[in-house]
Amino acid sequence: MKTLEADVKKAFDWTRWAKSGPAVELEISIIREMLKVSLFPGVISFGGGLPASELFPTEELAQACLGVLKEHPADSLQYSLSMGVPLMREYLAARVSRNDHPVTVDNVFVTGGSQQGLDLIGRLFLEKGSYVIMESPTYVGALQAFNFYGAKYCALPMDEEGLVIDRLEENIKKYSPRLIYVVPNFQNPSGRTLSYRRRIALVEIAARYNVPVVEDNPYVELRYSGQTLPSLASMAPDGVIQLGTFSKLISPGLRIGWICAPPEINKFFEKVKQAVDLHTNTFCQYVIAEFAKDGALDRHIEKIKQAYAHRRDVMLSALQENFPSHITWTKPEGGLFIWATLPEGVSALKLLPEAVKEKVSYIPGGPFFAEGGGENTMRMNFSNASPENIVEGMRRLGRVLHEHAKI
Amino acid sequence: MKTLEADVKKAFDWTRWAKSGPAVELEISIIREMLKVSLFPGVISFGGGLPASELFPTEELAQACLGVLKEHPADSLQYSLSMGVPLMREYLAARVSRNDHPVTVDNVFVTGGSQQGLDLIGRLFLEKGSYVIMESPTYVGALQAFNFYGAKYCALPMDEEGLVIDRLEENIKKYSPRLIYVVPNFQNPSGRTLSYRRRIALVEIAARYNVPVVEDNPYVELRYSGQTLPSLASMAPDGVIQLGTFSKLISPGLRIGWICAPPEINKFFEKVKQAVDLHTNTFCQYVIAEFAKDGALDRHIEKIKQAYAHRRDVMLSALQENFPSHITWTKPEGGLFIWATLPEGVSALKLLPEAVKEKVSYIPGGPFFAEGGGENTMRMNFSNASPENIVEGMRRLGRVLHEHAKI
Repeated sequence: MKTLEADVKKAFDWTRWAKSGPAVELEISIIREMLKVSLFPGVISFGGGLPASELFPTEELAQACLGVLKEHPADSLQYSLSMGVPLMREYLAARVSRNDHPVTVDNVFVTGGSQQGLDLIGRLFLEKGSYVIMESPTYVGALQAFNFYGAKYCALPMDEEGLVIDRLEENIKKYSPRLIYVVPNFQNPSGRTLSYRRRIALVEIAARYNVPVVEDNPYVELRYSGQTLPSLASMAPDGVIQLGTFSKLISPGLRIGWICAPPEINKFFEKVKQAVDLHTNTFCQYVIAEFAKDGALDRHIEKIKQAYAHRRDVMLSALQENFPSHITWTKPEGGLFIWATLPEGVSALKLLPEAVKEKVSYIPGGPFFAEGGGENTMRMNFSNASPENIVEGMRRLGRVLHEHAKI
Repeated sequence: MKTLEADVKKAFDWTRWAKSGPAVELEISIIREMLKVSLFPGVISFGGGLPASELFPTEELAQACLGVLKEHPADSLQYSLSMGVPLMREYLAARVSRNDHPVTVDNVFVTGGSQQGLDLIGRLFLEKGSYVIMESPTYVGALQAFNFYGAKYCALPMDEEGLVIDRLEENIKKYSPRLIYVVPNFQNPSGRTLSYRRRIALVEIAARYNVPVVEDNPYVELRYSGQTLPSLASMAPDGVIQLGTFSKLISPGLRIGWICAPPEINKFFEKVKQAVDLHTNTFCQYVIAEFAKDGALDRHIEKIKQAYAHRRDVMLSALQENFPSHITWTKPEGGLFIWATLPEGVSALKLLPEAVKEKVSYIPGGPFFAEGGGENTMRMNFSNASPENIVEGMRRLGRVLHEHAKI
């Protein structure tokens, strides 16, 4: 029988295979690259957005796994619906209705984490040259998701009340954006929260021009001080696509998030989702629904809130104690991040190797700016490191800044 | 404090939101829609591509969940790398090397099921107007994934040896395709297997024109008769992107598949994957690696192979017994599907309501043809129904065909 000619094996040259423009242009996430630095032995990392591993509810999840495989041995392991497992969607609808605004099962759509939610939104709404209005700085994962679809950005400044609204209307008129994208609570990266009056103004202006608002809301339940503000979705359920996730509340490794949107929009997401990956992990949807029932999730959230509130306070005190006085930082009421601004002309990126030498790391702020700039900013996570390591890490970082970030 | 004007809530009109062309044009999967028919009470379904739920290794998976949460309580629930969990990639590299051809960890990339593998391939290689050469009929999920990127198709006919190669070279010259997509073993939907000599010819021609070959290989380990043939990837590791999945071997609900490709191509997939969903479910990667170790996966595969081989044989006998003699069907050596051809002019789609009246269902073959046609074909799954239900369902379907599919 004929066999393969020996030289065929070598004949392919993958360097010359034609690839799609957007895929080639995608930049590897600088954040995910820099996270590798955090794995160096002895480095105290404030880099990632990682929840505290030691607080994962492993015992309860083990029980949930057993319960699911006993009660739903077939359904929990089989193919399931693209919109999500009915049990999960019912749970989500009840939870969103209780915590946020009244919705039905038809409003909720299960995703493989919030990042997939952003990708599905990009797929549905964005084409080459479509504009998105967003905060500056903004969540870098949204930029990555939207970049593939050829989005352009109008990034509006923030202050301590979140997105500055003054020039929103003017920019809507100028750019006819497909979407307005905001992270209204304890924003990643800045830690800032959109004030109540700004929320109202944002929704009113968006409604006037019928621009859908994407409300990315991963941290809303992690509030440590101050009062919960009404969500944008609660103000205008027909105009807002809200993203939620269990990544920060239970575990990011389970990759379960959700979209809350008008039902007809979810029907579009259903089509898109089928092409992308058929449906989200069935088993983990059951496990989370099983774990969450009878208030166990709420009790767990109280537990991590206490821990994270303490870590935030420890980091704020340590910043006060160790950082040079010409550096400023945000005081977030929740979430996972504090955002610092160094003197103009100091590059947080160039400073990072010095920090790693001192065995501490953070994320330089530049990549969070859709239109460039922000080199003198940095994001610090306070949820992942222990309080002791926060104190020690801030001492190290303070030394680096005193040495290298002079005015 | 200012509150929201009441009419704002109603001011949004999502019917007028601009959406991306490809997302709007996507058709809802006719297969997933028709699967809903299968849920009607009493209907015996040969429609889906579902593994047998009663054979899921629930006990062993429960033990694996406990083992993982005990041994890897932090890592199994935390964010992980976009290429996949190292433990999983090591397991996959060893398994592919043992079963198929020698690879290293750098060759394997974990995906959220094979459907995501197809989407990532589409993202990386396809742009509006890019041609893909494929079998006719072909896997409809590949069409869905590639359609979004604006692919065009050149669908070449099949015979009992799989893809007919005669006109491959001529069509490569004509269309300069970005990819050749094949399901070489027990193809979905036809059940056919690409012969050894055709495999060699396919790889030689693809190499001559440096066209990457996508070898979609979900069923290769489910062979019930005949001899395993060398994979395309084993013939030309530098020219083939091979897709594998645990969906048919363990559970589709866990959504874990993999790509086996040249390492530099995997680096592109890494960038693409970050934007899409950061990474695949960490926990389920650990659970599968834990379950699979010490040969448990191989023993489980032997078990389901015995069951599916029997079901295939039962269906083939029942077809012989019940189908009109002018109808032909394939005799697959493995996989999940038998493919029948009705007389020209008979529409399997129009026949489906008659079948459902008789409480039996299948999938009409039309959607599997990239360039239209095939109305007189149908796909029948033999892995999901019990042998008793296969016998009874085929009796029902035989009655329908005797009544409505006359020559």
